[in-house]
Amino acid sequence: MRIARFSTGEGVSFGVVEGGPGEEFVSAISGHPFGQVQFTGERHPLSQVKLLAPMLPSKVVAIGRNYAEHARELGNDVPDEPLIFMKPSTSVIGHGESIAYPTTLSHRVDFEGELAVVIGRLCREVPVERVKDVVFGYTCANDVTARDLQKRDVQFTRAKGFDTFCPLGPWIRTDLDPGDLALTTTVNGEVRQSGRTSQLVHDIPALVAYVSAVMTLIPGDVILTGTPAGVGPIEIGDEVSVGIEGIGTLTNKVVARD
Amino acid sequence: MRIARFSTGEGVSFGVVEGGPGEEFVSAISGHPFGQVQFTGERHPLSQVKLLAPMLPSKVVAIGRNYAEHARELGNDVPDEPLIFMKPSTSVIGHGESIAYPTTLSHRVDFEGELAVVIGRLCREVPVERVKDVVFGYTCANDVTARDLQKRDVQFTRAKGFDTFCPLGPWIRTDLDPGDLALTTTVNGEVRQSGRTSQLVHDIPALVAYVSAVMTLIPGDVILTGTPAGVGPIEIGDEVSVGIEGIGTLTNKVVARD
Repeated sequence: MRIARFSTGEGVSFGVVEGGPGEEFVSAISGHPFGQVQFTGERHPLSQVKLLAPMLPSKVVAIGRNYAEHARELGNDVPDEPLIFMKPSTSVIGHGESIAYPTTLSHRVDFEGELAVVIGRLCREVPVERVKDVVFGYTCANDVTARDLQKRDVQFTRAKGFDTFCPLGPWIRTDLDPGDLALTTTVNGEVRQSGRTSQLVHDIPALVAYVSAVMTLIPGDVILTGTPAGVGPIEIGDEVSVGIEGIGTLTNKVVARD
Repeated sequence: MRIARFSTGEGVSFGVVEGGPGEEFVSAISGHPFGQVQFTGERHPLSQVKLLAPMLPSKVVAIGRNYAEHARELGNDVPDEPLIFMKPSTSVIGHGESIAYPTTLSHRVDFEGELAVVIGRLCREVPVERVKDVVFGYTCANDVTARDLQKRDVQFTRAKGFDTFCPLGPWIRTDLDPGDLALTTTVNGEVRQSGRTSQLVHDIPALVAYVSAVMTLIPGDVILTGTPAGVGPIEIGDEVSVGIEGIGTLTNKVVARD
């Protein structure tokens, strides 16, 4: 299933997306999508609703240096254990919303296309073999990063924490084997990252086990699994897309922060 | 005013705490405490309710190395700009709850007594001179840190992100000048930290302005302002208290994580 969150002008709902590219429609469900989905009967062409971030997570935990070639391109070693950091919930935006370039604070903002895991159950200390039971689904993410501030601060929080620096979407795919999916990031249509999730240094079961050994995870929480090689800058006016096989494509324009 | 959050067995409320030490009572208010407070008429001796974390923040932003003597004791320089990191909302506990020592992952857990700022209004890019308008009040915090993991990981997220590693309380004091308050941390009654908030390298207006220039702050969000010199380990069975002049004392026991 593909689960979206959307607004119609009359309110915000979760819904199930069906149909092929360009012909999708969305069937609204009542309440949240965890557990048994209940349809309201309301149904819209996807083109006539506004997609929102598919989840409002209580927390976004992200993983650094989890593709070997990307670690190397920034001059870093691959860590023995997952390198975790957080992005604030206020950084989350959806497909079609704009990334706001904080021009007064940074002069180098990079895209980082990533596979995101959405948690479906309250859990802690999840063993690797039980991780599939706590994952709700997968979506595309862009771990937007002010690279100049990241280098200066050492801690990643400011560089990766600006409002709009965590695009998620366009929806959550729930029935998917995430083990070997193609991930492609384009800027203005030009391919900049082309990786496969089979290249993850620490795979999804390992990541969820690792993070949940530290902190309780709540339904809707998001784990970003790291970015493949090819990261680079985005500029005002650019359109950046993160596409993942079996999920869809998350597209955001870059604007100057007002 | 002192604003607490408490449970009676029949539910959870915010309330106003009145009366002197040992003789406090709490008057319940309806809804949240931002804006005009409305009393429900329900009133309890403080000793007969369970205090909870005074706020469930959407995010906790914390500041590193913000007292010069503490930066030096860990061998660090004082940063020119505030050093920010985040603690997950799942790390928050209240006065009287237990800090769970993650014995399988860390062998060195430290207390860090801190003044915490609670935000009262949705805000971003707050100028220094307007910060007083967005602050709801102040509480005591313990930025509990697995020092061994902090050194190993470089990023602070894991070391400071364990469940129970962010005690807050016992309540929020709303009418207080935070400029020069005594802060004392004790372990089993022995004084281990004794600082004054006048020693902050970056003061509260500077911190709120800095953080809000990056991320939108939401009512209830918490900023920890850094810890003075004297940090040190806590062990299972210890009782650690952070007392701040004009606010009160936050006390938590240390137990082994189950």
